[in-house]
Amino acid sequence: MFHTKSKLAVALLVLASQPAMSLEALPAKPPVPADNPMSAAKVKLGQQLYLDPRLSVDGTISCNSCHNVMGSGTDNRPVSVGVNGQHGGRSAPTVWNAAFLSVQFWDGRAASLEDQAKGPILNPVEMGMPSSDAAVQRIRSIPGYVDEFKTVFGKNEAVTYDNIAKAIAAYERTLLTPNSPFDRFIKGDKKALTEDAKRGMKLVNDVGCTGCHMGPDFAGPAMPTGTGFYQKFPTYENNDYVKKYDLMADTGRFSATKNEDDKHMWRVPSWRNVALTAPYFHNGSVATLDEAVRVMAKTQLDKILTEKEVADIVAFLNSLTGVFPKQEMPQLPSTPNSSLTNR
Amino acid sequence: MFHTKSKLAVALLVLASQPAMSLEALPAKPPVPADNPMSAAKVKLGQQLYLDPRLSVDGTISCNSCHNVMGSGTDNRPVSVGVNGQHGGRSAPTVWNAAFLSVQFWDGRAASLEDQAKGPILNPVEMGMPSSDAAVQRIRSIPGYVDEFKTVFGKNEAVTYDNIAKAIAAYERTLLTPNSPFDRFIKGDKKALTEDAKRGMKLVNDVGCTGCHMGPDFAGPAMPTGTGFYQKFPTYENNDYVKKYDLMADTGRFSATKNEDDKHMWRVPSWRNVALTAPYFHNGSVATLDEAVRVMAKTQLDKILTEKEVADIVAFLNSLTGVFPKQEMPQLPSTPNSSLTNR
Repeated sequence: MFHTKSKLAVALLVLASQPAMSLEALPAKPPVPADNPMSAAKVKLGQQLYLDPRLSVDGTISCNSCHNVMGSGTDNRPVSVGVNGQHGGRSAPTVWNAAFLSVQFWDGRAASLEDQAKGPILNPVEMGMPSSDAAVQRIRSIPGYVDEFKTVFGKNEAVTYDNIAKAIAAYERTLLTPNSPFDRFIKGDKKALTEDAKRGMKLVNDVGCTGCHMGPDFAGPAMPTGTGFYQKFPTYENNDYVKKYDLMADTGRFSATKNEDDKHMWRVPSWRNVALTAPYFHNGSVATLDEAVRVMAKTQLDKILTEKEVADIVAFLNSLTGVFPKQEMPQLPSTPNSSLTNR
Repeated sequence: MFHTKSKLAVALLVLASQPAMSLEALPAKPPVPADNPMSAAKVKLGQQLYLDPRLSVDGTISCNSCHNVMGSGTDNRPVSVGVNGQHGGRSAPTVWNAAFLSVQFWDGRAASLEDQAKGPILNPVEMGMPSSDAAVQRIRSIPGYVDEFKTVFGKNEAVTYDNIAKAIAAYERTLLTPNSPFDRFIKGDKKALTEDAKRGMKLVNDVGCTGCHMGPDFAGPAMPTGTGFYQKFPTYENNDYVKKYDLMADTGRFSATKNEDDKHMWRVPSWRNVALTAPYFHNGSVATLDEAVRVMAKTQLDKILTEKEVADIVAFLNSLTGVFPKQEMPQLPSTPNSSLTNR
């Protein structure tokens, strides 16, 4: 169930005089939980909900506001803006290929896409719904949704918070970006990568980046859904970058678990489409990919790279930009005879 | 040029013992200005710009945020929310079929869709760009847009504020909703309207609504682009609705012209898709369509309708909901190595 298909696609590259580095193309399908099977109608419903700002208390913020599927799956801001102009605490991670991650959020506090989807709707600084009941009531007030939920979930009273999350998660499992130059290279098209990118691919192994950024999503080894692959960031604190980019202010996974061992632990983020998701890190403090590479080399591996090495690694990271699928724009069911707010 | 084709589609209905009422189906095409011809590439670019929040100062608000083309072309709020949680002064009019209007905005202060598009981007409470130059610089910072503008406008330095507006306007000229039950009825399908709606169609003539809500968009007679069809609202001030819904606070067109004759004058709004665009009026103070009908009958015609009459008119207005065209979701060109804001 967990990336079993991807095992077949594993390509083992033995790089001259270096440890073996296993490189994997993006699997064609993500894992799907047994209690939320995929269907075309569910994905369509999930797409509507994902793009519908009426899931926020004042009708202004949708999932898509911060995780824009018309772009990089992020909002290209350090932190996002929620209802009433409020700022979030961490930079919006991309939704693209999130279906391959075994835990969600920067701190891994959600075990699945379903669990994740329930968070921002109720977060007071994001979509701001006062309760899951309020979100359900909002969706139940839209006749077209009531009909669709019945069709998808097959019974009356089908509009529940669990089902809202299930539909959104099903849609998110379609948000995959295969066929990056790297994937085409792995599958045999040796001309798919530039020479710079090929050098970069060797460097990320030699320097040690792929000690964590491994697997088909470059976000760690295959883990069961709900089990995260975490690393301390920064690992090396005694350098100028840590202060310059304020990398210690947020305690990471500790804020979710209150476990001392989790201080400054973070889910290892994916490299897929990383060239499109500036600014970087949990606080969005670094605007450029080359600087992000320098910061990571120093804070995680205590290494200072040459500018040539940085450029080659950036070239490799650029080769991880995949092909974004064409999507039809949904038509959202209407709410006649109502106003989302009083002013 | 102005609705000439629509003249051919005019159907004259002589309603028994009433004055002749001319009813027109929605024309297939809106007028297109000579200096902004349509092209597929321009429409595609315009759709991207329309949906791109990066046209706002902090990357959070697009044209679509308030005029949602996945829905009614509005945001179903009394007034919209712009950057930094600020509220607008008037309710967002629908973008659907706006291409048929001879002037834009509630007060008609823009002569064309091109002129209209330039407003919200620079409005401090809407998209908040500090200047047209800032908007141009933002778009020029996105390499994919620079290439597209060259293709569409055919020269270097093609990213200008005028061209941004032209592309958006070209896209908006495709946002048409033909084939409402009413349109099908006018074209000969006598079963397209319910009996309630047919009674309502007669009533809007008998009561006097179509004295203003005439023409293919039910927004007034065909006028040259840039020439508005305005009416005073409220015309009859001495009734409870005016106070209850605060209908005199906004001076309407006067705020744009400072001409005393324009006090409380408003562009006559379209009835097309009106059943989907609650809440109603320039201040969004009325949440339901039946109440909007009561208010209009009293404030504009000094008439009190029976509940049966209101219901029939609402049935007719519901028959003006058209068919929304399928659209492909655009993929927005990326802004690598940058952050839209510092926090």
